[in-house]
Amino acid sequence: MQIGMIGLGRMGSNMVRRLINAGHECVVYARTPATVAKVAAYGATGVASIEELVERLTPPRALWLMVPAGAVDETVAQILPHFSANDILIDGGNSYYVDDIRRAKEVAESGVKWIDVGTSGGVFGLERGYCLMIGGDEASVKTLDPIFKSLAPGRGSVDRTPGRERLPASTAEDGYLHCGPSGAGHFVKMVHNGIEYGIMGAYAEGLNILKHANAGKTVDSTDAETTPMRNPELYQYDFALPEIAEVWRRGSVVSSWLLDLTATALAASPELTEFGGRVSDSGEGRWTSIAAIDEGVPADILTTALYARFTSREGSVFADKLLSAMRFQFGGHEEKKA
Amino acid sequence: MQIGMIGLGRMGSNMVRRLINAGHECVVYARTPATVAKVAAYGATGVASIEELVERLTPPRALWLMVPAGAVDETVAQILPHFSANDILIDGGNSYYVDDIRRAKEVAESGVKWIDVGTSGGVFGLERGYCLMIGGDEASVKTLDPIFKSLAPGRGSVDRTPGRERLPASTAEDGYLHCGPSGAGHFVKMVHNGIEYGIMGAYAEGLNILKHANAGKTVDSTDAETTPMRNPELYQYDFALPEIAEVWRRGSVVSSWLLDLTATALAASPELTEFGGRVSDSGEGRWTSIAAIDEGVPADILTTALYARFTSREGSVFADKLLSAMRFQFGGHEEKKA
Amino acid sequence: MQIGMIGLGRMGSNMVRRLINAGHECVVYARTPATVAKVAAYGATGVASIEELVERLTPPRALWLMVPAGAVDETVAQILPHFSANDILIDGGNSYYVDDIRRAKEVAESGVKWIDVGTSGGVFGLERGYCLMIGGDEASVKTLDPIFKSLAPGRGSVDRTPGRERLPASTAEDGYLHCGPSGAGHFVKMVHNGIEYGIMGAYAEGLNILKHANAGKTVDSTDAETTPMRNPELYQYDFALPEIAEVWRRGSVVSSWLLDLTATALAASPELTEFGGRVSDSGEGRWTSIAAIDEGVPADILTTALYARFTSREGSVFADKLLSAMRFQFGGHEEKKA
Amino acid sequence: MQIGMIGLGRMGSNMVRRLINAGHECVVYARTPATVAKVAAYGATGVASIEELVERLTPPRALWLMVPAGAVDETVAQILPHFSANDILIDGGNSYYVDDIRRAKEVAESGVKWIDVGTSGGVFGLERGYCLMIGGDEASVKTLDPIFKSLAPGRGSVDRTPGRERLPASTAEDGYLHCGPSGAGHFVKMVHNGIEYGIMGAYAEGLNILKHANAGKTVDSTDAETTPMRNPELYQYDFALPEIAEVWRRGSVVSSWLLDLTATALAASPELTEFGGRVSDSGEGRWTSIAAIDEGVPADILTTALYARFTSREGSVFADKLLSAMRFQFGGHEEKKA
Repeated sequence: MQIGMIGLGRMGSNMVRRLINAGHECVVYARTPATVAKVAAYGATGVASIEELVERLTPPRALWLMVPAGAVDETVAQILPHFSANDILIDGGNSYYVDDIRRAKEVAESGVKWIDVGTSGGVFGLERGYCLMIGGDEASVKTLDPIFKSLAPGRGSVDRTPGRERLPASTAEDGYLHCGPSGAGHFVKMVHNGIEYGIMGAYAEGLNILKHANAGKTVDSTDAETTPMRNPELYQYDFALPEIAEVWRRGSVVSSWLLDLTATALAASPELTEFGGRVSDSGEGRWTSIAAIDEGVPADILTTALYARFTSREGSVFADKLLSAMRFQFGGHEEKKA
Repeated sequence: MQIGMIGLGRMGSNMVRRLINAGHECVVYARTPATVAKVAAYGATGVASIEELVERLTPPRALWLMVPAGAVDETVAQILPHFSANDILIDGGNSYYVDDIRRAKEVAESGVKWIDVGTSGGVFGLERGYCLMIGGDEASVKTLDPIFKSLAPGRGSVDRTPGRERLPASTAEDGYLHCGPSGAGHFVKMVHNGIEYGIMGAYAEGLNILKHANAGKTVDSTDAETTPMRNPELYQYDFALPEIAEVWRRGSVVSSWLLDLTATALAASPELTEFGGRVSDSGEGRWTSIAAIDEGVPADILTTALYARFTSREGSVFADKLLSAMRFQFGGHEEKKA
Repeated sequence: MQIGMIGLGRMGSNMVRRLINAGHECVVYARTPATVAKVAAYGATGVASIEELVERLTPPRALWLMVPAGAVDETVAQILPHFSANDILIDGGNSYYVDDIRRAKEVAESGVKWIDVGTSGGVFGLERGYCLMIGGDEASVKTLDPIFKSLAPGRGSVDRTPGRERLPASTAEDGYLHCGPSGAGHFVKMVHNGIEYGIMGAYAEGLNILKHANAGKTVDSTDAETTPMRNPELYQYDFALPEIAEVWRRGSVVSSWLLDLTATALAASPELTEFGGRVSDSGEGRWTSIAAIDEGVPADILTTALYARFTSREGSVFADKLLSAMRFQFGGHEEKKA
Repeated sequence: MQIGMIGLGRMGSNMVRRLINAGHECVVYARTPATVAKVAAYGATGVASIEELVERLTPPRALWLMVPAGAVDETVAQILPHFSANDILIDGGNSYYVDDIRRAKEVAESGVKWIDVGTSGGVFGLERGYCLMIGGDEASVKTLDPIFKSLAPGRGSVDRTPGRERLPASTAEDGYLHCGPSGAGHFVKMVHNGIEYGIMGAYAEGLNILKHANAGKTVDSTDAETTPMRNPELYQYDFALPEIAEVWRRGSVVSSWLLDLTATALAASPELTEFGGRVSDSGEGRWTSIAAIDEGVPADILTTALYARFTSREGSVFADKLLSAMRFQFGGHEEKKA
């Protein structure tokens, strides 16, 4: 089917390629003409303005937005005057589901439908397909089914879940799912990313413990400030992290796609010297914790993983200084030098 | 090659079957004769005593222990008098690596070799193979290579890690690895399980947030004790968890074997009513946190996941009562009834 | 000076008594006439309606609200039609500072001033005085100074902070502070409560560890599910918690008012059997964590303390069931019975 | 009474002064003669060797050790040959209670008694008195009562705990307590320090949130990596932290001695620029978490506070690099520069 795409960054351009490969017709726009030209070269129709984009789409239109979360409202404002009743806007970026609920109401005043799609898969999606978590009205989701089916991974080589043969057929087995009304797609994607933070943090902490398993080789001095290591003989291991990540990929309980990627990173650079360790967070992890707080359910692990990212970016420096200041006050403890 | 096996529980008996299927000769012993008989039926040689077991093995012997961590010392004490120099004892259970270091020294006095093997794979290992993390001396590990190779999964259908073609060949790609000297195998397995706790907890918390995404449907009363939900309209979703676990299995960043199993569990029982939620921990999670503390590296996520298990078994009840008691003291706050 | 008070619960009625004791004139209203009568008996002027309350106050009026957070908007809506420019509304309850920012704007349309006051002190405030954290415009705060001064504890027997003699004079030394513009008072009170949760949780966890310091006396069975306690001889202590809380009250680094109250609670009931351990949270703890997330700074301890309260009220039951379900899937592990 | 003291650092020398002020006879030794001379100037008898120290003490001797935890065994080994049955050794430093259990057994072979004393009070103890948590045999503790009474704060100006009038008389009200058999004193002190870490962390995090309450003033750019702040208008506060710490000292729920010290630190240096924020831990916090793990009770807050110190000393750098490496692998996400 025909679909428009605004936003041709890493994610957007790869999605267009995957759709074109599946035989869909894509009309594409981005602010930079060179970007449009690059994607047009894969077989898409490039246009020079939002007006032209809307014009080229046959009503009822389907227009997919793949822009930064902070740019969605502005982009919608530019599109809406040119849109008609029953046209569909799809937000496939990292929006907050709260905004989807609001935007669905706002565009509904023009009869326009709002579909929110949480998209997972990263730079590998072009080849592997994208896992799609979808929110919005039943009819629009049905209309877009050919698009979703092509973007999603399909069954692939993943074993069928035992017991599913007794359940009603579901697109979930093909890697896309209509999760519920407006916002449901981004809500599920939000929690997905929260979980992602937790899993990543679990690997990171575990491998860090292995990395420091030779801590007993460094002799600590005996002073009143620091307790000496009681059992240095237990921490004499120099582990080869690239090998350990690799061995866990087969047969272990902790095998996963994130582990596969970790093995790749460690194979290329066992010490990861090219990274500084300032870890960004793109919003969903924060929103997941806020959802847990609003619901009154604990999210210790996910929030801990989020805070670890804040700390990696020096969010706790003043708090640490306060601890040092308190210790100096009650015990005259001087800080150790770095 | 020939190998003995003591301990024929779920793990031990399946490992024997996998070894027999691969053409090895297995001499097996367990305390219950019926258990021995059952495993002998797969083609193993069943024996009635540890003495007989040792006698049937050709020196230099290889004897694999698959007994509870608390029973290893006693079992070794029974074997050792009958063992000769260069015989090999393999501990494939969930032992603390600290004990491996001690035991390796103890048996070395008789010239016996001690190999520690962390074994991951659970009840699926028979079919999928077991991920093996191995510690001990180079020569013994080499001797046992045919056994390890048969127990391990082999390369299977898992894609090769990009970049490994530039690295020296390694058995890690076949799912087993000599990690280092005595204790190294169980050290790596310990951290593996610590990571496992963290990943499991991440999924559990995330799905719990989805489960309660309809919290806005329940109207809270307005009283001084409880803040009313500010935005009930944002928590009106009734998510189908079996479908969501399923859709994440393909193409998503959080796909993993633990997610596959979660999807299986939810497909069978969406509400998990057959579980009470008292979660055991088998030791490695505790030891991982202790290792982190000894090394002076943070393990917030892994330890949080461990503590969640303690809390699930009511380890915090008195602490909670103290909180209620404090609140009553300073604010006259009465507890809410369950 | 003259002041009105709406809301005569535990906090409101005690504040009126303290103000009357200090010579102020209080006009009081609550929905239940019997409550009004009880407070009038201390020397306040009781009224039967909000209209009457406003009428009795001399412009520019000062009217203090001490009602549940969920009832503030409704109460303000009833007052506002009767209020005039330059009248002052004071919210001394547990409101979210976000609402103060909004309400200050709303009442400003009628020329009314909005002052937000975070009030700490609990049921002891009548005698000890209330710590007041104040937000709003400079002029109104100045007008209300006699009220704040009387409600606050004053210097009392607390030692002067070394170094303050070099700083400009500040009401902070008398236990009340103008913290900043609208919302600043409740923002500081919010963080105060977040800290309160953390401190309370620290005591609760520590005393819980002491409570279980006899864990080595219980013999664990040796099975594959549970690691046996390695060192039961180290956990043979039966500590007298009321005595320990008491000894820490004098000279220790952890002495505090919350510890004093804990000692009181334990002196009355060492096992705290009258409490179930379902711990409420009144909003500020949640908002503190949300503020940390919005600011991008970690609040691991405060959020952990908040989540412990959610867990105490069974917010993690489904998550725990998921962990059990996963363990059963990969390892065939049965749950332990309670 | 007469008592010997080995170790004349900040803590030891102040304790001698407090004992001399109370009329006790102190014989003191340290490795550096100048240190001995300084303390002798307060009225103590300085000696030049451990042999001389033992000789000067009248049997049954009482000898107090105030040396680093790592130096206790060596010091005891020097003393023991000169000691007689019924002499008492007191360890008042930061030893692990596990060592007390062992040492009590070791010295018992010579008939010597071992008393472990957890000592809290820091540099203020000279004036305020030291909170003493004591372990060991009843008779020795009774013998030393005059010493403990003089070191402890006594009842002071602290209000009596309501309800204690109904309990048996206890030295806890004077600030010292015989907690149980060998190790009990350092066990309770260990947990005390664990709680101390938690309380300190709670203040640090809370004040850090206040410090960053102006985060909305910094405009974030809109890019795909970072979610823009949704509500900058809510984070426009420039709080005066020295004033806020001060106002909480009177009447608030979070008042404590650690808050008093924090107020002192902030009064001297609102930005704490003289501190780098690398926070040491002296052992007890680690041991508290290990005790919680051994007992199977959760200590989320205390362990989180411990890990925050590890992180402040860069214990998580490799873990953070791993997170960046994973994000680069799956999403091509580049790290933000510092």
